[in-house]
Amino acid sequence: MEDFNKLVEAEAANIQRQGEDDEEQDPESNTLHQPLLKRNRTLSSSPLAIVGAKVSHIESLDYEINENDLFKQDWRSRSKTEVLQYIFLKWLLAFLVGLLTGLIATLINLAVENIAGYKLLAVVNYIEQERYLMGFIYMAGANFLLTLVAAVLCVCFAPTAAGPGIPEIKAYLNGVDTPTCLEQQRLDLGKEGPLVHIGSCIASLLGQGGPDNYRIRWRWLRYFNNDRDRRDLITCGSSSGVCAAFRSPVGGVLFALEEVATWWRSALLWRTFFSTAVVVVVLRAFMEYCKSGNCGLFGKGGLIMFDVSGVSVRYHAEDIIPVAVIGVLGGVLGSLYNHFLHKVLKVYNIINEKGKLHKLLLSLSVSIFTSICMYGLPFLVKCRPCDASSLESSCPTTGRAGNFRQFNCPKGYYNDLATLLITTNDNAVRNIFSINTPTEFHIFSLTIFFALYCILGLVTFGIAVPSGLFLPIILMGSAYGRMLGIAMGPYTKIDQGLYAVLGAASLMAVGDCFNPSIYDIILELKGLPFLDAHPEPWMRNITVGELADVKPPVVTLSGIEKVSHIVEVLKNTTHNGFPVVDAGVIPPMGSPNGATELHGLVLRAHLILVLKKKWFLQERRRTEEWEVREKFTSIDLAERGGKIEEVTVTKDEMEMYVDLHPLSNTTPYTVVESMSVAKAMVLFRQVGLRHMLILPKYQAAGVYPVVGILTRQDLRAHNILSALPQLKKSNGSKKGN
Amino acid sequence: MEDFNKLVEAEAANIQRQGEDDEEQDPESNTLHQPLLKRNRTLSSSPLAIVGAKVSHIESLDYEINENDLFKQDWRSRSKTEVLQYIFLKWLLAFLVGLLTGLIATLINLAVENIAGYKLLAVVNYIEQERYLMGFIYMAGANFLLTLVAAVLCVCFAPTAAGPGIPEIKAYLNGVDTPTCLEQQRLDLGKEGPLVHIGSCIASLLGQGGPDNYRIRWRWLRYFNNDRDRRDLITCGSSSGVCAAFRSPVGGVLFALEEVATWWRSALLWRTFFSTAVVVVVLRAFMEYCKSGNCGLFGKGGLIMFDVSGVSVRYHAEDIIPVAVIGVLGGVLGSLYNHFLHKVLKVYNIINEKGKLHKLLLSLSVSIFTSICMYGLPFLVKCRPCDASSLESSCPTTGRAGNFRQFNCPKGYYNDLATLLITTNDNAVRNIFSINTPTEFHIFSLTIFFALYCILGLVTFGIAVPSGLFLPIILMGSAYGRMLGIAMGPYTKIDQGLYAVLGAASLMAVGDCFNPSIYDIILELKGLPFLDAHPEPWMRNITVGELADVKPPVVTLSGIEKVSHIVEVLKNTTHNGFPVVDAGVIPPMGSPNGATELHGLVLRAHLILVLKKKWFLQERRRTEEWEVREKFTSIDLAERGGKIEEVTVTKDEMEMYVDLHPLSNTTPYTVVESMSVAKAMVLFRQVGLRHMLILPKYQAAGVYPVVGILTRQDLRAHNILSALPQLKKSNGSKKGN
Repeated sequence: MEDFNKLVEAEAANIQRQGEDDEEQDPESNTLHQPLLKRNRTLSSSPLAIVGAKVSHIESLDYEINENDLFKQDWRSRSKTEVLQYIFLKWLLAFLVGLLTGLIATLINLAVENIAGYKLLAVVNYIEQERYLMGFIYMAGANFLLTLVAAVLCVCFAPTAAGPGIPEIKAYLNGVDTPTCLEQQRLDLGKEGPLVHIGSCIASLLGQGGPDNYRIRWRWLRYFNNDRDRRDLITCGSSSGVCAAFRSPVGGVLFALEEVATWWRSALLWRTFFSTAVVVVVLRAFMEYCKSGNCGLFGKGGLIMFDVSGVSVRYHAEDIIPVAVIGVLGGVLGSLYNHFLHKVLKVYNIINEKGKLHKLLLSLSVSIFTSICMYGLPFLVKCRPCDASSLESSCPTTGRAGNFRQFNCPKGYYNDLATLLITTNDNAVRNIFSINTPTEFHIFSLTIFFALYCILGLVTFGIAVPSGLFLPIILMGSAYGRMLGIAMGPYTKIDQGLYAVLGAASLMAVGDCFNPSIYDIILELKGLPFLDAHPEPWMRNITVGELADVKPPVVTLSGIEKVSHIVEVLKNTTHNGFPVVDAGVIPPMGSPNGATELHGLVLRAHLILVLKKKWFLQERRRTEEWEVREKFTSIDLAERGGKIEEVTVTKDEMEMYVDLHPLSNTTPYTVVESMSVAKAMVLFRQVGLRHMLILPKYQAAGVYPVVGILTRQDLRAHNILSALPQLKKSNGSKKGN
Repeated sequence: MEDFNKLVEAEAANIQRQGEDDEEQDPESNTLHQPLLKRNRTLSSSPLAIVGAKVSHIESLDYEINENDLFKQDWRSRSKTEVLQYIFLKWLLAFLVGLLTGLIATLINLAVENIAGYKLLAVVNYIEQERYLMGFIYMAGANFLLTLVAAVLCVCFAPTAAGPGIPEIKAYLNGVDTPTCLEQQRLDLGKEGPLVHIGSCIASLLGQGGPDNYRIRWRWLRYFNNDRDRRDLITCGSSSGVCAAFRSPVGGVLFALEEVATWWRSALLWRTFFSTAVVVVVLRAFMEYCKSGNCGLFGKGGLIMFDVSGVSVRYHAEDIIPVAVIGVLGGVLGSLYNHFLHKVLKVYNIINEKGKLHKLLLSLSVSIFTSICMYGLPFLVKCRPCDASSLESSCPTTGRAGNFRQFNCPKGYYNDLATLLITTNDNAVRNIFSINTPTEFHIFSLTIFFALYCILGLVTFGIAVPSGLFLPIILMGSAYGRMLGIAMGPYTKIDQGLYAVLGAASLMAVGDCFNPSIYDIILELKGLPFLDAHPEPWMRNITVGELADVKPPVVTLSGIEKVSHIVEVLKNTTHNGFPVVDAGVIPPMGSPNGATELHGLVLRAHLILVLKKKWFLQERRRTEEWEVREKFTSIDLAERGGKIEEVTVTKDEMEMYVDLHPLSNTTPYTVVESMSVAKAMVLFRQVGLRHMLILPKYQAAGVYPVVGILTRQDLRAHNILSALPQLKKSNGSKKGN
C-alpha cells in the first residue's frame, strides 16, 4: 500500500494547490494510510483514489431517497401520465443502451479484426517469402505504433480509460462516485473490460442526456436526475458490455449480478435481459450484413467467441474425476495468478508514479516484449505434418482463419504454436477450443503458450492502455486444460476441446471463489472505498458509538440557522451532511421543559444552493411550504457540485436566517450507539446509504439527540483499524477468522 | 378476499379450540380482513394462512443475527478449525441437496414415465383394435385412480403438499415460517412446482439433521441451527428443484433469483450453481444408465425437456417484428390468464372450505373432465396424411415417442391432436416444439389444444393434488405461438418450432413482468404475509410514528424484571419480542438526574426458556457473564417453540427476578418515529428483519425511549389500509400510482 500512498500524496498536493477542497476529510489527515505516523488517531478518510490511471477526487453517491418537503411535494404532484412516461422512458433507455453498446462493439470488432487481420496477413506474407527479419520488424513496428497511439491517448487525454474499467464501475454501483467516462481507444489484450466500461458510459451519458457540455435538457429526463435511476441504467450498461464481448445475454446478466452490482432488484433483472437481448440482435444483424463481404477482413469470426452450439460434446458420468482434478488444480493456479498480479501491480504503481514519460515507456517496452515473444517463440517448435485424414481440406491455411498455420514450415506441415500466437486473440481462442483435434497441438507448444500468457497477462494488465482480463485468463486456462487433457488422455475419452473449456472455466471461477477476486485486488490498490459484502468478524466487537468517539464531534445545525454560522461550518468542515436539530421544542407529551428534536439531515449541496439563491429570512421564523416552492424546484436540488468558495455573502446577509426545515431529509436512516459495526455496515450497504446518523441509547434531558454520523469511509475495515489500533492486536492474537 | 376470510375464520375457530395461541395478534382481531366491521381500528395481524391446502399457523423468521451476550461469547470462542468446519459443511450440504434432489427427480421421472407410458400404450392398443369405449374407460379409470390416490394422500395426510408449493417457499425466503415439508405424491400437471418444493424440503431437512422425530444431533450441524443458514440452504434447494425439472443449471439459479429469493448474496450464487451442477450430473448419470433399457418405458425422453442443442435455428434481423407481435400478444394473454386464475382460485377456496369430501370430489371431477377432453377431442379432427418426403420413416408412430400418432386413423394417416393429447406432457412439449414440421399441426387442432389447456390449466391448479404451473402455460404458449406462426407464415421464414418456443416464452415472461405474477396472486389468496419489494406510493405519506399510534401500546420489560411480570406479559400478549428498557441509569455524560436506557430486545422464546430452566435470582442484581454461560448454551437459544402454558412457576418463584441483559439482543435495528413507512419497509425487507424498534425523535426527560415496535404484518399495505382507512380515500381520490 505504501507506494500507492506516496502516489496519492504527491497528487494530493497537486490537487490542493489547484484549490479543490477535500471533502469528508479533516484538514491535515492525508496521512491516513501511513500507519507509521500515529499522531492523529481520529477516524478520517481519504477522498482520493486512482480512477483509471489518474488520481481523482471521489465522492459518495446518494442512492437513498432524500425525503424533504420539496421531494414530497414534487412526488405528490406527479400525475399518472408522468408515472407512465417514467416507466416508458426507463425501458426506452434500456433499449438505447443495448442498441448503442451493440453498435459500438460492432465497430470496435470491425476495427480490431481489420487492423489485426491486415497486420498478420502482411507478416505471414513476409514469412512465406522467408524474409523473417522484415516480418518481425513489420509486426513489432505495427504493435509498437498501435500501443503508442493508445498509450499517448490514455496518458495525455483520458487517463481514466486505462485499465480494465470494471473496478471503477463496480465501485460506482457500490456507491462511490468516480469522475469517469471518456472515449476509449483500441483494445490490446481483452475486450470485455473496455466494453463493460463503454456500456456503462453510454448508460451514464444517456441518463444525463449527453456529455456535460452538450447536455440535452429534455423534460422527461428529469426523472433520471438522481443517483438511483442512473445506477440502474449503468447496471444495464455493464451487462450489455459483457454481453457484447461474449455474445451471451445470460452471461452478461450473471456477470453484472455476481461481479458488479452491489444491489439488485428483480425488476432490474428483466431490464438487463432486455438490454442484452437488444445487443445480441444488433450483433446478429451486423453479422448478417458482413456475410456479404462488405466488412473487409471481418468474417464469421470476431463475434462468435464461444459459439459451441454446433458442437455436441459427449461426456460420461465417470468423467467427473478428471473434471474435478482440473477444477482443483485450476483453482490453485488461479489463486497463484492473483497473488502475482497483486505484486506486479504494486511495482507498476511505483513506475507510473514517476510521470507520464515513464508510463509511456513502460507501455512501449511491454509492447516490444510481446512482439518478440509472439514472433520468436514459434521458431522454437518443430513443424508438424498435416493430418491427411482430416476433414478440413486446407492445411496449412494461408488465409486469415483456420486451425493450421504454415508460418515457417514447408508445404504439408504446420506450426502449431504459430497457430495460437500469430493470430487475433479471438481466433486463438477458437483454435484452442476446437474439438476433434486431439493431436493438433504438441504438449511442448502448449507449455510455451501457457507460460507466455501467464507472463503477458501479468505484465500487460497494469500498463496505461485499455485492456481486459478475461481473455488472457481464458487463453491460459484453455492451454492448461489441454495440457492436462493430453496427460490424462489414456484414462478418459473426453475431447481435448472440452478439456480446454473446462480449464478456462476452472481458472476463472475457482480462483474467483476462494480468493479475493482480481477486481477486488485492483479496487484496493486504487484506493476506491468499496464496501465489502461481508463485514469483518472483529466488527462485531465494536459498536458504532465507539467509532463515533474517535471521530471529530459531529457538527449539527439548528432548524433555523444564522447565515454566518452556515458559511462558517461549510468553510471549516468538509462534511457533506449535517444533522438538523431543534432545541426547546415542546413535545406532544412528556416534560413541558422543552426537548430537543432531531429534525433530519441537510446536504452540503443544498446549503450551498440556499446561499447561492440567497433564500434568507430577516427574522427567525418557520417558512410556509409555498415559500420554498417559489424559490426551489426539485431539479435544482438534484444538481450536484458548487463550492462554498464561489458564493459571496454580504455582511448584512450574514446576520439573516435560513429555515432549513423544508430542505432537510426528514427520514434519514439511523442506528443506536450500541449497534455493532458489523450490523451497521450490513444496513449501510443493503440500503445503499451515504450518511447514517447515530442516536444515543439514553433518554434524558441534556443528552444530545445525535451522537455522530457515519459515512462510507468510516465503515471501511482499513480506516477503522488505523483509528483503533488496539483492534488489530486483539484481532491478531485471537484466532477469529 | 372475503371467501378466504370466511375460510380462515372457520379454521381459526377450530385452531383456537385446540388451544393453540395466536401470536402477534390481539385477542379479538381475527376480523382484520373484514373492512365492513370497523369497530376495531388498531393495526393488528392474522397469523393464519393457507399452506398447501391447509390453514396453518405462521410465524416470522429471525434472519437477523441476535447479538446477545451469549452469541457474542459463542462467536468469540469459535476457533479457526470450527470456521473451516462450517465452510466445509456449507458446501457439503449444498452438494447433498443437489445429489438428493437429483435422485428424487430421477425416481419421479421414472415413475411418471412408466405409469403414463404403460397407460397410454394400453389405450393406444385398445384404439387400434377399435374398442374405443374400452380405451376411454381404461384411460379415465387410470386417471381417476391416480388422482384418487394423490388426492386422498394430500387431503388426509399431507395437506401442505397440494398446490405448486412455490408460493410457500417464496414466503419462507421472504421471512415467513410455514410449517411445511412432507412427502410429495405423483404429479399431475407439471412437475417443476413439486420439484422445487422437494428440493427445498430436502434442504430444510438436511439443515436440521432430519425430520423432527428422528433428528441426528451431529455436533457440526449446530452451525446451521439458525434461520439464516437454513434460508441459504433452501435457496439452493429450490434452484436444484427447478434445475431438476428443466435440466438447466442457469435456469434454476435465475429462477431462484427472480421468483423465489427475496434476499441475495453473491456468495450464494456460487453455491446454488454448485448444487444445480450436481443435479445435472446425477440426471446425466441416470440417463446413461437407462440407455441400456433398464428403466422400463423410460427412454431418452422425460428428462430432456428443452434440449434444443441439436437444433440450429436460422433467424434474421428483420424477423424481429413478428417476434415482437408474439411478445405483446402473449403478454396480454398471460395477463388475462392470471386474471381468470384468480377468479377460479377464489371459487375453489369456497369449495375446499366445505370439508375433505368436497375437496376429494372436486379433484375427481376435474380428473374425469380431463380424461373426457383428452380422449374425446381427437375424434373431432380430421386425419392427416403422412408426409412421404419426411425424413422420419415411421409415420404414424405406434410406439411411445414420435411426432405422429395414428390413433383412430387408417395406416398412412395420423391424428395431429392425438399426437399432442394422448401422450405425456413432456412428449407433448417435445412434439409441439419440433422444428421443420410446418404442416404437421392443423390450425384447427392447435386451437382446440390451446383452448383445452387454457381450461385445464385453470381448473387443475387449485385442486388438492400437487401440481405445477409452468407446464400448462408452456403448452398453451407454444400452441399459441404455432397458431400465430401459421397465420404469419407468408411473411416470415421463421420455423414453426421457434414460434412455439417464442409463444411459450412470451406467455411466461411478459405476463409475469407487467402483472402481479401468478405466485403473487396465490400468496395473497393464501394470506401469506409476503413483503413486497416495492413499497406502495402512499406509504411515503405516513410515518412509522403514525403506525405506532394505531397499534396497541408497546409492552416493554425492565432489564431486571420480576418473574410474575414476565409470566403475566407472556400470557396476556402474543408478541414475540419485547424491548428491554432500564430506568434510572446514570449516563456517562449529560444530566445526573438519571436517564432511561434502551438496552435491547428480548425474544419470547428466550423468556420461555428462562422460565423453563428457572434461571431466577433472589435479589434484584445484574448477573455476571459466567452465570449465564453456566445455564444456557447457544444451542438452547436457537431452539424454537415452547409455550407459556407448558411452564409452571411456583408462587415463591413469582417473587424472584430475572436479569434479561445477557439474553437480549443489544443491537436491534431501529428507526426514528419520523421515518416514512416506505423507507422503513425497504430497511425491513433488505436486511431481513423480524422486529424493528421505533425510537422517539424528541430527547428530553420523561420521553420514553421506545415509541413502538413494528413487525412484518404492520408493514403490509393491506393491514395499514384497514387500520387507517382515510389513507385509502386520499389514495383513491389522488392520482398517485
